[in-house]
Amino acid sequence: VTMLGTVAIAGIGLIGGSLGMAIRQRDLARRVVGLARRQATIEEAISLGALDEGSTSPEVVAGADLVILAAPVLAIQEQAEAIGPCLKPGAILTDVGSTKARILESLHRLTPPHVELIGGHPMAGSEQGGVGAARPDLFEGCIYVLTPSPHRPVGRALETLRGLVEALGAHAVIMDEQTHDEAVARISHLPHVVAAALAQSAARGFPADLLAMLAAGGFRSTTRIAASPPELWRDICLTNREAILDALDDFDRTLRHFRAAVDAEDGEALIESFTSGRTARDALVPRAAERARGRG
Amino acid sequence: VTMLGTVAIAGIGLIGGSLGMAIRQRDLARRVVGLARRQATIEEAISLGALDEGSTSPEVVAGADLVILAAPVLAIQEQAEAIGPCLKPGAILTDVGSTKARILESLHRLTPPHVELIGGHPMAGSEQGGVGAARPDLFEGCIYVLTPSPHRPVGRALETLRGLVEALGAHAVIMDEQTHDEAVARISHLPHVVAAALAQSAARGFPADLLAMLAAGGFRSTTRIAASPPELWRDICLTNREAILDALDDFDRTLRHFRAAVDAEDGEALIESFTSGRTARDALVPRAAERARGRG
Repeated sequence: VTMLGTVAIAGIGLIGGSLGMAIRQRDLARRVVGLARRQATIEEAISLGALDEGSTSPEVVAGADLVILAAPVLAIQEQAEAIGPCLKPGAILTDVGSTKARILESLHRLTPPHVELIGGHPMAGSEQGGVGAARPDLFEGCIYVLTPSPHRPVGRALETLRGLVEALGAHAVIMDEQTHDEAVARISHLPHVVAAALAQSAARGFPADLLAMLAAGGFRSTTRIAASPPELWRDICLTNREAILDALDDFDRTLRHFRAAVDAEDGEALIESFTSGRTARDALVPRAAERARGRG
Repeated sequence: VTMLGTVAIAGIGLIGGSLGMAIRQRDLARRVVGLARRQATIEEAISLGALDEGSTSPEVVAGADLVILAAPVLAIQEQAEAIGPCLKPGAILTDVGSTKARILESLHRLTPPHVELIGGHPMAGSEQGGVGAARPDLFEGCIYVLTPSPHRPVGRALETLRGLVEALGAHAVIMDEQTHDEAVARISHLPHVVAAALAQSAARGFPADLLAMLAAGGFRSTTRIAASPPELWRDICLTNREAILDALDDFDRTLRHFRAAVDAEDGEALIESFTSGRTARDALVPRAAERARGRG
């Protein structure tokens, strides 16, 4: 890995802080600077070893070779607006948002053409949670998706970022932003919306204490992610609308098929549907991974 | 607890075997006899300490004071037909099926009127899994629902069974069979159908290796129960049809509401829906229980 000069991280929460710690501990850059809204965050990040220095002013990114936007999805646009004019020619700009197409469009619109744009999505932690929860090994073994901007020619930026990501211990996966957004709509955003709807629906019609008594492991695991921060999931729904609607419509058709089998008391169709569900899950969750990571 | 005379268990799998072990180890009956389809199962159950003796012939229940039907849901009807004529006057008959109204109807139809009927649903393990997995502490701390038959007068049977269940370490909860079936349709059967449909839908449209790479904890936990045995869930769907259809319809309305908010890019409605989901889940899964039982 080539050592980077200055890396600037904008948004110092769990992800931004962990990136700073990992880059500093592994000597992947000469200097890590941070941009945060509050001075107290910067001081905490410096004391935790996540930054060399920081500022609440966007000019702090001025000399950076790599700038990582690590705010929640909807705030990334604001960040880009603020730092756009400060980016030096040839700088690489990336982000850590859970959706990619709209963010890349915004970044293209809001930054000068001499900046190279590569979207990023580290599949670890969440954009929420403060720097206090940051740790340098957060990215070890995780998938880190990189989506080069379709709006700009990609020069050395992709190789530089891939090298950095692998040096963090993550697996870099390069794909186009549409494929990313449609795939995560199915495998991540759909389950979140379904879990939230399921929790609501399961809780209706009976006293909570009766239902709580009867709630077994099935309910607990199926709705675990319904406890996720609403703001994060609002932002994801707002920035990946079309793909999430497609996934919801496909799910709706599948569930109708199930309902028809229950309605018709069609034992064979039920066996077929439950077996398809089991087969689909087995294909996506290797048993080894499940054992290694526990039941969650 | 009054010690019972002879307890007969019909169907010696995980639940039946565990009941036998717990009753014998805690000296809750003078004798535990078993009825199984295969002689090998009886021998295994005796060697594991789950039975004193057993037979593949229904006459083995002839002298029993308490008979527990522990076969999978759809097989319970067959069991009742076979043993009905052998039940002694005043015997108590119960079962361990996941649905209650239809089973109680069948038991009423298939057994002589001098038998007392109390449905049972221990919320531990599943009807599937062999006697090899049985353990005497399976019921400790679990909820054990008892539903007296609406078709017969209830004499001393309910108190006897409640005493037995509590002596197994379980919490006996008495409710009517309709309430039970409608509540578990929401809190257990709906999540199973949804998880199976979700796994199918999430797996469509992209190569499995791409999706598997992007599948994080959210997908894993939401679809964990999609790996359940299809036969068990077919049987549950077939014996709790109306309540499951109602739960599916309510879920459908909730999900439509969510979809409309995504479609309209209505941030406030999305926050409201995700917050309702989180609130509903928090009400049904006490945080203490979650911590104690892990993330699953």
